[in-house]
Amino acid sequence: MKTEWIAVDWGTTNLRAWAMGAEGVLDHAASEDGMGRLDRDGFEPALLRLVGPWLQAGRVTDVVACGMVGSRQGWHEAPYRAVPCAPLDAAATVAVPTRDGRISVRLVPGLKQSAPADVMRGEETQVAGVLALNRSFDGVICLPGTHSKWAHVSAGEVVSFQTFMTGEMFALLSQGSVLRHGMAAGGWDEAAFDTALSEALSRPERLGAKLFSIRAEGLIAGLPSAAARARLSGLLIGVELAAARPYWLGQAVTVVGSEGLAASYARALRAQGVEPRVVSGTDAVLAGLVVARARVTA
Amino acid sequence: MKTEWIAVDWGTTNLRAWAMGAEGVLDHAASEDGMGRLDRDGFEPALLRLVGPWLQAGRVTDVVACGMVGSRQGWHEAPYRAVPCAPLDAAATVAVPTRDGRISVRLVPGLKQSAPADVMRGEETQVAGVLALNRSFDGVICLPGTHSKWAHVSAGEVVSFQTFMTGEMFALLSQGSVLRHGMAAGGWDEAAFDTALSEALSRPERLGAKLFSIRAEGLIAGLPSAAARARLSGLLIGVELAAARPYWLGQAVTVVGSEGLAASYARALRAQGVEPRVVSGTDAVLAGLVVARARVTA
Repeated sequence: MKTEWIAVDWGTTNLRAWAMGAEGVLDHAASEDGMGRLDRDGFEPALLRLVGPWLQAGRVTDVVACGMVGSRQGWHEAPYRAVPCAPLDAAATVAVPTRDGRISVRLVPGLKQSAPADVMRGEETQVAGVLALNRSFDGVICLPGTHSKWAHVSAGEVVSFQTFMTGEMFALLSQGSVLRHGMAAGGWDEAAFDTALSEALSRPERLGAKLFSIRAEGLIAGLPSAAARARLSGLLIGVELAAARPYWLGQAVTVVGSEGLAASYARALRAQGVEPRVVSGTDAVLAGLVVARARVTA
Repeated sequence: MKTEWIAVDWGTTNLRAWAMGAEGVLDHAASEDGMGRLDRDGFEPALLRLVGPWLQAGRVTDVVACGMVGSRQGWHEAPYRAVPCAPLDAAATVAVPTRDGRISVRLVPGLKQSAPADVMRGEETQVAGVLALNRSFDGVICLPGTHSKWAHVSAGEVVSFQTFMTGEMFALLSQGSVLRHGMAAGGWDEAAFDTALSEALSRPERLGAKLFSIRAEGLIAGLPSAAARARLSGLLIGVELAAARPYWLGQAVTVVGSEGLAASYARALRAQGVEPRVVSGTDAVLAGLVVARARVTA
């Protein structure tokens, strides 16, 4: 079982790598050496710590990486490509000089949109993965996460996209705001999620007021932690769906993400009469990296 | 110049005290010993560190305090009073046992509203202060801050109120989110504030998308730090005003707060055709504490 090349998804907080052989994935490794905790000289050692066991002396192994690793604050800048365009382009991956001769590293560039201004890094590879898994795909891809993206894809190109800070807002509010006191015990309450989602979708402008009511009900009415957390999530996803309505209304929607989060978005969309297809974020990024690598070697 | 009593505004992050004589304020002191950094046994020493120089051996000095000091996590709980009610009630201040015999401490309780659930601590004293400064006041009092409050006041009573997490959201997003990268250099751009305010008021549901555009424009269009900060503020205040519309539309509005923040809210209201009166937050809380003390000694 020989590692032919290495696929890497390198975001702000995590580094994930897969040893790829002729038949697909041979091995998998991950660390918390995300871009956010590395300076420029820290990337190559962090990568070698993780994938070193897969390398062979006297042989150069291709490494194809997507995500924030290619940002200005990352290992090496891979300049954004402007939409409308295909999510990946053979000519645009960027080679990174390395000290260790056993690896040849290329980075996938992100996408930018000038009006309204927007950027993505990493999600373009997942979009390419969805297209690789379903060549005739035409419609909308929703990629929930720290910065949720909605992308309109047509004829193999990303036509437009829109980012929402939903995941980061949830993290900030649930861990860093006065609301943390009422949800520290964790848990989840599906009914509270549904109600908050529906309220936020019909009256999104009331978000600011609805947020504090989570704290107030905790203080004067004993709102349980599970209901508080689910309500916060429902409010934030509801406000996102309200603003993203032009993306999903009457469209074929594919949700790409981790199991729990993708399920919440799928549930929310179903409540609006949209039956989304769900693709695992890992499957999508791997399928996209396979496409990126094929183009690198082509 | 003898200190007759001591007025205290004791919030989550700050402790402010005034030595009061027959003619008014004799002296002023402040520290960062807010409720948030004290455990239950830390309150009396923190107070004595600040006001000790004003005390005399063999004489008991009244201390009247409002704010989070009276919360469950504070020095001693002063249970909420339910609206509709006058902002202050003589019978409801709560005596706190002290070890030092030179002080006699009483806490002003906050207010609660059961539907929609809401709470305030400290702002009720400012509302009482506004009423003391203008006995015929009838209308709406806006108290911007970490948790902005809008209170409807009629016939000397708080009829209803609503809290918005605007200030806390600004702090979290400007210091703790991905947006911090684009506004670290500080500054302020009045035109960017006005535009963002207007956009958020007319399309409040687009907040989630508008927030990330601050980051994206920083990356691909060089948005300056001053414009980024002012735009974030304008978006958050605009969304608050959109949800608080029933409070201010066609009403006599008084804005109570610190100079800069009150000016931003006043500017925003003026853009909507409302000419607010502005009262300094310090003047309001002091006037309210005078009322609370008068009732304590009555």
